[in-house]
Amino acid sequence: MTDTIISSATKEVVIGFGRPFVMIGERINPTGRKLLAAEMKDGDFSRVEADALAQVAAGAHMLDVNAGIPLADEPAMLAKAIKLVQSVTDVPLSIDSSIVEALEAGIAVYQGKPLINSVTGEDEVLERVLPLVAKYGAAVVAISNDETGISEDPDVRFEVAKKIVNRAADHGIPKQDVVVDPLVMPIGAMGTAGQQVFSLVGRLRNELGVNTTCGASNVSFGLPARHTITGTFLAMSMSHGMTSAIMNPLHAEVKDTIMAADVLAGADLNCAAWIGAKREGADATQATGGRRGGRKARRAEG
Amino acid sequence: MTDTIISSATKEVVIGFGRPFVMIGERINPTGRKLLAAEMKDGDFSRVEADALAQVAAGAHMLDVNAGIPLADEPAMLAKAIKLVQSVTDVPLSIDSSIVEALEAGIAVYQGKPLINSVTGEDEVLERVLPLVAKYGAAVVAISNDETGISEDPDVRFEVAKKIVNRAADHGIPKQDVVVDPLVMPIGAMGTAGQQVFSLVGRLRNELGVNTTCGASNVSFGLPARHTITGTFLAMSMSHGMTSAIMNPLHAEVKDTIMAADVLAGADLNCAAWIGAKREGADATQATGGRRGGRKARRAEG
Repeated sequence: MTDTIISSATKEVVIGFGRPFVMIGERINPTGRKLLAAEMKDGDFSRVEADALAQVAAGAHMLDVNAGIPLADEPAMLAKAIKLVQSVTDVPLSIDSSIVEALEAGIAVYQGKPLINSVTGEDEVLERVLPLVAKYGAAVVAISNDETGISEDPDVRFEVAKKIVNRAADHGIPKQDVVVDPLVMPIGAMGTAGQQVFSLVGRLRNELGVNTTCGASNVSFGLPARHTITGTFLAMSMSHGMTSAIMNPLHAEVKDTIMAADVLAGADLNCAAWIGAKREGADATQATGGRRGGRKARRAEG
Repeated sequence: MTDTIISSATKEVVIGFGRPFVMIGERINPTGRKLLAAEMKDGDFSRVEADALAQVAAGAHMLDVNAGIPLADEPAMLAKAIKLVQSVTDVPLSIDSSIVEALEAGIAVYQGKPLINSVTGEDEVLERVLPLVAKYGAAVVAISNDETGISEDPDVRFEVAKKIVNRAADHGIPKQDVVVDPLVMPIGAMGTAGQQVFSLVGRLRNELGVNTTCGASNVSFGLPARHTITGTFLAMSMSHGMTSAIMNPLHAEVKDTIMAADVLAGADLNCAAWIGAKREGADATQATGGRRGGRKARRAEG
């Protein structure tokens, strides 16, 4: 049982096996969002606030906050965004930057125990980020690439994840506070991208006993009807042990598939969340003609 | 590599690992369809014909044909239905009955190599059905229950499946002609039903090396928005090795999820089938903001 606890000042979220999947809203990220980037650079954070509220209303359990804008003062921007988001919502946050100073500025103003996004397996990065995670008693996303890049071999990625977990332990960070990102590549560019993740997530659960997350939308990059691909990918990953994802909760199809996968993984007790969300859609006339298994059962229905 | 080949007079379908999932249309089955049952009993098979055409048009690779109507002459009805369906479509069929005489009547008129649905692990059933499968060089669905009923323990179900595969071998039937049905229970009644199947399907692939099928709709019995549950269940099962299912191809959501799962399992080369089916839905503006993995990659996008 590996429970990763993330909190705000007033709310706790637990990422863990057998628990409902944790949806981390991805929207507050200027990467690829020119308008948001321009506004933030001009000091207008109204869209950040609106995105925070909309994602929580759509069911996000946590929010990822990224302020990575080229040529901007990222530490100050990230701290400002964190403070703003925490003033309008109570969900725990993932503090997302590739710049250690920005992570530090975000953590310094954060209320609660954040998820730091991220550390890689590169020695230099490990030795800069892990002390920060330890100092603040935070949890951290561990991305399974290192100096050699992103391996296409899941075994290599597993070893990188293991290295990060061990290095974290050296810094006094328990493995339940390391959430591994197995790295999701676009399936349109690499046909084995799905199988790599399923295999890796299974090993991360069974051998390392760590929780996992991923940037889910990336899997469907460039494909038509991409939300179906993203949602289906998450369901398949969940059946192998994926316990959270950074995704867009505003896409109802993705969220529905995650909720259905929770039911099927046994993480939605008595299907209570599913039935609560979908009751109005219930159709009693559909509930006939089931094939209950076994010739005797089928015969009895006739 | 286990390839199960099923054929009509003119068309072959291959069920196998790494291949596109095989959708077997479930509609031609009077169980739970009072109108269809009444019509068939009166000799009116027009709905059988319409169901056959509609399912093939919707993308079914095979059709299951069942004529199990209480107090009717099932062998004659099944033979009639098989002949009719083969006269209007060219997809291979699954001949479905719990009555051995009906299976035999269906096989006798069938053109090609059918899938016989089904045999269980009960000794009496095995010794009546397997000689028929061997005699006609057919393939057979092996349902993993026996005299003791349906076990909730996946290990017990695995042993039943193994027993059937071994008994089939005694009759000269190779394991690629045994397609195991792990038995899908309603998730609303049994919260572990999904996990049981995922675990069992994985063992059936890795240890027994056999293809699998299931009555998919049963998993969502009694639940609201059941097609989302059924489709998601199939995608999760596919990621563990499920290679076919008896399902309703007319439910576009279920079919879409299966196609997406084929993409993610690497069974849709270059996403060709997906892109072909969805091209008109493509939205190039969506294809930005992907998180390509690794801090360097993300930074480069900024």
